[in-house]
Amino acid sequence: MANVKPTLIQSYPMIGGDGPHSYLRNSTYQKAAIESVRAKTKEAILAKLNLQTPKFDLNLYKIADFGCSVGSNTFDAVQNIVETVKLKHQREKSKGKNQTHLEFQIFFNDQSNNDFNTLFKTLPPYYLDHQIFACGVPGSFYRRLFPKKSLHIGHASNALVWLSTTPKDICNRNTQAWNKNNILCTNLVDEVEKAYKKQFKKDMGAFIEARAQELLPGGLMIILGLCLPDGVQMIRTWKGVFYDMIGDCLIDMAESGIIKEEKLESFNLPLYFPRFSELKEVIELNGCFSVEIMEEVKHPMEDMPLSDGFIASMHRAAIHGVIEEHFGGGIIDELFDRFSKKSTRDHSIYSKASQKDMQYFILLKRKID
Amino acid sequence: MANVKPTLIQSYPMIGGDGPHSYLRNSTYQKAAIESVRAKTKEAILAKLNLQTPKFDLNLYKIADFGCSVGSNTFDAVQNIVETVKLKHQREKSKGKNQTHLEFQIFFNDQSNNDFNTLFKTLPPYYLDHQIFACGVPGSFYRRLFPKKSLHIGHASNALVWLSTTPKDICNRNTQAWNKNNILCTNLVDEVEKAYKKQFKKDMGAFIEARAQELLPGGLMIILGLCLPDGVQMIRTWKGVFYDMIGDCLIDMAESGIIKEEKLESFNLPLYFPRFSELKEVIELNGCFSVEIMEEVKHPMEDMPLSDGFIASMHRAAIHGVIEEHFGGGIIDELFDRFSKKSTRDHSIYSKASQKDMQYFILLKRKID
Repeated sequence: MANVKPTLIQSYPMIGGDGPHSYLRNSTYQKAAIESVRAKTKEAILAKLNLQTPKFDLNLYKIADFGCSVGSNTFDAVQNIVETVKLKHQREKSKGKNQTHLEFQIFFNDQSNNDFNTLFKTLPPYYLDHQIFACGVPGSFYRRLFPKKSLHIGHASNALVWLSTTPKDICNRNTQAWNKNNILCTNLVDEVEKAYKKQFKKDMGAFIEARAQELLPGGLMIILGLCLPDGVQMIRTWKGVFYDMIGDCLIDMAESGIIKEEKLESFNLPLYFPRFSELKEVIELNGCFSVEIMEEVKHPMEDMPLSDGFIASMHRAAIHGVIEEHFGGGIIDELFDRFSKKSTRDHSIYSKASQKDMQYFILLKRKID
Repeated sequence: MANVKPTLIQSYPMIGGDGPHSYLRNSTYQKAAIESVRAKTKEAILAKLNLQTPKFDLNLYKIADFGCSVGSNTFDAVQNIVETVKLKHQREKSKGKNQTHLEFQIFFNDQSNNDFNTLFKTLPPYYLDHQIFACGVPGSFYRRLFPKKSLHIGHASNALVWLSTTPKDICNRNTQAWNKNNILCTNLVDEVEKAYKKQFKKDMGAFIEARAQELLPGGLMIILGLCLPDGVQMIRTWKGVFYDMIGDCLIDMAESGIIKEEKLESFNLPLYFPRFSELKEVIELNGCFSVEIMEEVKHPMEDMPLSDGFIASMHRAAIHGVIEEHFGGGIIDELFDRFSKKSTRDHSIYSKASQKDMQYFILLKRKID
């Protein structure tokens, strides 16, 4: 068996278990996002899934959730897809021959350091009903994870903002792309933006190419995520403001000697919000999919005043891993204590956010070769 | 979605992680067993797998290991199967058309409280070579785990000695089948034996029926395990002697007040070594498989003098979970300390073992409907 050297892909899992800072207990915002697209997903599948597609095995649907993490969001999203496929079958078959006895094989994918143990222990009971079979698939979704033409429907929710790695140059003081004390792409420095764009293009391109091989012709790929409307700068959005303030707290901690200056200089999040048109370009470049739906979905919590505590908890669960990986264990409490104090001192920090990011919904259909 | 009530299945995972008492570090005996059948498995697949089977997708093989636990044994077993299938294809296709580009989807199954996190983190690098795709499948193999006709080859090694549950009556002082201070089926008491036999028949029957549905017609099921030759009594084998002594240590501990008397009375292992003919009967009763090979494989360590320490370590990893589940945490060290002292005092305990258990190798072929 060929001993192929694995490509090193950075990976920062969400916090497992069900403790107070776990992803499980801090994914309300993502949950709201999923619910806001529940109806849209249902509608899209009903409209775009073609049961007459050649080579579709109509007794068995294979569905994958890419970047599933743990917790109820992935279960809810998958359940919605399963129920919609069943409904579609009921509608189209009810006047014809006997109802087919549908089976589903569900593949939950995430990095191999995701907490699959928790995922498996919290599987809803309908996975025991002898028609829905669950699997976990470990590995980065920026590479192939499934055999060729082996999936009917793929799904990815809020997963693709995480790049496979932080662009190298932005962590290097000796390059023009050095991001100084910023910790992500603010869209203020051209060279930094270029480096992030390049990494995004590579990663997203790899994602689309891998899925193009794995999906059956006629298969659907649903992608829900966050981007920036064309022209918007990350630093002007409230998420940008949040990360800017986290960066400020890290600077304070470096000045107090709690973390090392050079550690801070080399720290950047592998997190990137592409522009809407950038996203579209990468997908169309691949050519294997037709873009059936690509539009904004208004996040139901978008205009709600979010408490600082809520914002902090939500992000804490998401960035815990990457922070501890870089700075070592034990600094996360200090960081969020400082964040909390800073944001209490200055109530209007999010008023600096004059622009909005954007939640997108994409439905791609694998072309028939 | 129907909310089907799950059947309660007891489950005692092997010890995860890689500590001194982990399954990972104490599975040498099982490893030797796997190696002794490596050549046999290879030979059997080469002889019995028919590439001309209708409905076999010859570009993609789906292989499942049932009761995989963690560690290298499952990887070794699967690798042997994958390499043999490749070899078979090379041999039969080399004179014909172009070599097919084979892909493999590997399903690692065990109970949902198995340490899948460790399993996934220790996947050998060839799972990244874009032709071999790994999945974890949580759940008891005594029920359906896969869609109908979705597997080419199933494999189970040393997993089926674990029943889905301990027969109830043997833990109940008020029944004739009460097993008193014994902790498994010694084959000395008829009523106890009957209760174990009944549970085995139910479980093994369910295993075979589930696999009959999951395997493609022409698909192979390889089962490696331990049983007793007809006429042999468990209590006369060295494993029986070992468990008898563990039982004695538990009695001592109950007398010293370390564990409760009534806890001990209700304790029995869900572990059963069927007779060879019993095993055969259950498989044939199902009728969906032809028994292509069913024979003894001499265990390479069978005639080696095993040290008491080795025997103790090997079993400790296996029964840790079930002991802690029943008696609560923290007694396992005490139990094996006592075992160690007892067996040092009496060097000849295993000389009481006048009969031998038996390692079997079974290859079943799913009949074509």
